[in-house]
Amino acid sequence: MISIKITNAYILTMNETFQIIEHGCICIENNIITYIGDELAVSHLEAHTVIDAQGNLVMPGLINGHTHAAMSIYKGMADDMPLKEWLEHHIFPTESEFCTKENVETGARLGIMEMIMSGTTCFADMYYFTPTIAEVCKQMGIRALLGQAVLDFKAPDFDTPVQAIEATKELINSTVQNSCVQIIPAPHSPYTCNAGILQQCRKLANEYNVPLHIHVSETIVEYNTSLATHNLTPVQYLNSLGMFDGKTIAAHCVYISDEDRNILAEKRVHVVNNPQSNMKLVSGISPVPLLLQANIPVCLGTDSSVSNNSLDMFQEMKVAALIHKLNQSDASVLPARDIVYMCTRGAAKVLGIDNKVGSIEVGKQADIILVNINQPHLVPLYSIYSHIVYAMQGHDVDTVIINGVIVYLQKQFQLVDPLETMIDAQMIANAIMLRKSEREQQQ
Amino acid sequence: MISIKITNAYILTMNETFQIIEHGCICIENNIITYIGDELAVSHLEAHTVIDAQGNLVMPGLINGHTHAAMSIYKGMADDMPLKEWLEHHIFPTESEFCTKENVETGARLGIMEMIMSGTTCFADMYYFTPTIAEVCKQMGIRALLGQAVLDFKAPDFDTPVQAIEATKELINSTVQNSCVQIIPAPHSPYTCNAGILQQCRKLANEYNVPLHIHVSETIVEYNTSLATHNLTPVQYLNSLGMFDGKTIAAHCVYISDEDRNILAEKRVHVVNNPQSNMKLVSGISPVPLLLQANIPVCLGTDSSVSNNSLDMFQEMKVAALIHKLNQSDASVLPARDIVYMCTRGAAKVLGIDNKVGSIEVGKQADIILVNINQPHLVPLYSIYSHIVYAMQGHDVDTVIINGVIVYLQKQFQLVDPLETMIDAQMIANAIMLRKSEREQQQ
Repeated sequence: MISIKITNAYILTMNETFQIIEHGCICIENNIITYIGDELAVSHLEAHTVIDAQGNLVMPGLINGHTHAAMSIYKGMADDMPLKEWLEHHIFPTESEFCTKENVETGARLGIMEMIMSGTTCFADMYYFTPTIAEVCKQMGIRALLGQAVLDFKAPDFDTPVQAIEATKELINSTVQNSCVQIIPAPHSPYTCNAGILQQCRKLANEYNVPLHIHVSETIVEYNTSLATHNLTPVQYLNSLGMFDGKTIAAHCVYISDEDRNILAEKRVHVVNNPQSNMKLVSGISPVPLLLQANIPVCLGTDSSVSNNSLDMFQEMKVAALIHKLNQSDASVLPARDIVYMCTRGAAKVLGIDNKVGSIEVGKQADIILVNINQPHLVPLYSIYSHIVYAMQGHDVDTVIINGVIVYLQKQFQLVDPLETMIDAQMIANAIMLRKSEREQQQ
Repeated sequence: MISIKITNAYILTMNETFQIIEHGCICIENNIITYIGDELAVSHLEAHTVIDAQGNLVMPGLINGHTHAAMSIYKGMADDMPLKEWLEHHIFPTESEFCTKENVETGARLGIMEMIMSGTTCFADMYYFTPTIAEVCKQMGIRALLGQAVLDFKAPDFDTPVQAIEATKELINSTVQNSCVQIIPAPHSPYTCNAGILQQCRKLANEYNVPLHIHVSETIVEYNTSLATHNLTPVQYLNSLGMFDGKTIAAHCVYISDEDRNILAEKRVHVVNNPQSNMKLVSGISPVPLLLQANIPVCLGTDSSVSNNSLDMFQEMKVAALIHKLNQSDASVLPARDIVYMCTRGAAKVLGIDNKVGSIEVGKQADIILVNINQPHLVPLYSIYSHIVYAMQGHDVDTVIINGVIVYLQKQFQLVDPLETMIDAQMIANAIMLRKSEREQQQ
């Protein structure tokens, strides 16, 4: 018996030929897509669950290439201020006190809810307490590549980077066979990890053939400091350490010289662009169209809820399209279909999972979303790609299937109850606000 | 008896002191707010309708300062191309054939639905067939300032600009006593109207003491052509004609020199910034923070669905905050509260209706929205302004009251059925696509 049959489906496959099937049917057996095509041909097959997709677009789930999901509990805590003040006076002091295993669990749960509701079926994360986050992912049924953060200094979960790396080794090992959640090393950045630590992380990633997740050249301060310290750009410096000799997911890449671009292309580094976070923190604009021209795989990410403050990939798609057009003074840059590719099949490529997900194709794992297009702001329909990028919003998502499991159906979570998590998150925020006002009174 | 009582309300008043009432009650009698405060004090008063606002934010309706609502039927028809190609090969040819009274009615209805659903209670428009649009506004219960477009050449509704101006005079006169819908003159731009036509529009606006709505200095081409033709910038040229001697709503103002800025300030010109449209068409970035510093009232607008492609003011708020921060290299520019002001009380000032709407205050007309903040992406709550600008989306709007009438309640339209309009819009789009493919075959 088929697990799920999706009928009356307007299917955006995002396969190699960008095929669109205006009226079709999808069959899912266990976690695999086994049929896409005419409904009549499979009308004799019974299914455990039938989803009537009438009025919906059926498309691959969106992939968020770079976030810190658990930071959702800090969303809106500190806005409209420069990065240095934001980090040093708000994020770091708060994290040092409130980034506990319990709070990370609540934050991850909250962030993942937001992602699922807005059609994200897979995300690449970087944070502390990854075993806890992995557990939440499994409970909520979302696919994830969880970067265990490693820093030179004491982190919320490990006192030293060596401890963090040793633990990461075990975590990778314990998740490497898992089809949905994989823990990977995430040395925070070239300016917060020394050369030896960076290289240990690289070695570890290569040992298990997993990607390494790292922040690269996010701000002009980082770029100039790297030049002053190493006489090398951040990209050149990382390359000189052999950090790109293996699968790499490089978040941000805002300041990229022509030579940097050649290095990224030659070393097949994968890049995640986070336009809204880069704008909000005034970091700058990544030269994404130039990176793509150089055949560097680029996908989009929201970054954390503190610097965005949303995990909605539909927003990210629109802003990416707009800012790169403006930056290149060319309205034809990054047309809508390219942007959709960057958040589906292209993003799967960036994360190294395009053999498993990123498109609706027979044999792929079923990460599929249904989006209600029968609404005034999505009518009339000329181009579905245009609507996805320029007119849709996260809330248009009706149903989410991840790895063959219906995790969200007709706007209702199937595996979790959001209420308890929302109450927990507000209690943490109340404690943070109380502590903040105490600190201010002491000063 | 009270018309509407809103109880358990978390009220963002946007009044002079930016007062927030965490648990209060609002009473509306006919179209006027008559009470804001403790619920106990009015518990003895009966109301025709009681709205329990538990879990919602209650705030002033959003104001869209510049749009062309009826163009909703063209949404997604032509994207990812430069302005000239977009206008000359897609918008103008399509409008010349399809901009009929009937299609404008459908387009306006569709656009207004989208606006209401996303919390917009008032908009300033510029288009053809304004009596038809006025009728739709009345049926749907939305507040509007409808600019009757005037151009040198033949328009869809009038063969000559003189005819358009004569008709506009009657239209203004017929709506000037109406509290919710006012028709005003809208000479399209300094480059599509000759000096005499511009001045006749100015005279007409002044005769009835209504604002004039005009596109000003939207692109670098317009700016440079004006310099080449008149040896004056668009702002200087309009000023030289006396066009700013009276209430003016100037849309765009992307290219503004220091002297232009002084003129706008001195002449008390009101400005509408349309960041998403300006980015999508690669027009540029208006120097909004500098305009505000010069005490020029600025509000936000979506522009049309063809150059955006959304009428959701929440999106516009976020992108405005992000792009102006980036453009000024200062993350503290346009903090969230300023952005919310620009779409409520500040926008009412720009449109000249701040004596009537823009805030929740006793004596003002009741344009109020309820937004569901009890959702994962809006939890936890540190700052309501941050959430409105950076985390909310149009779909979070639950209920909309305009001029004391509930037009949208718990996500359901109260005065119209959206289905018929959506079907009509798709039929128009089908005809447009058919005609387009015929044209392409002929070529």
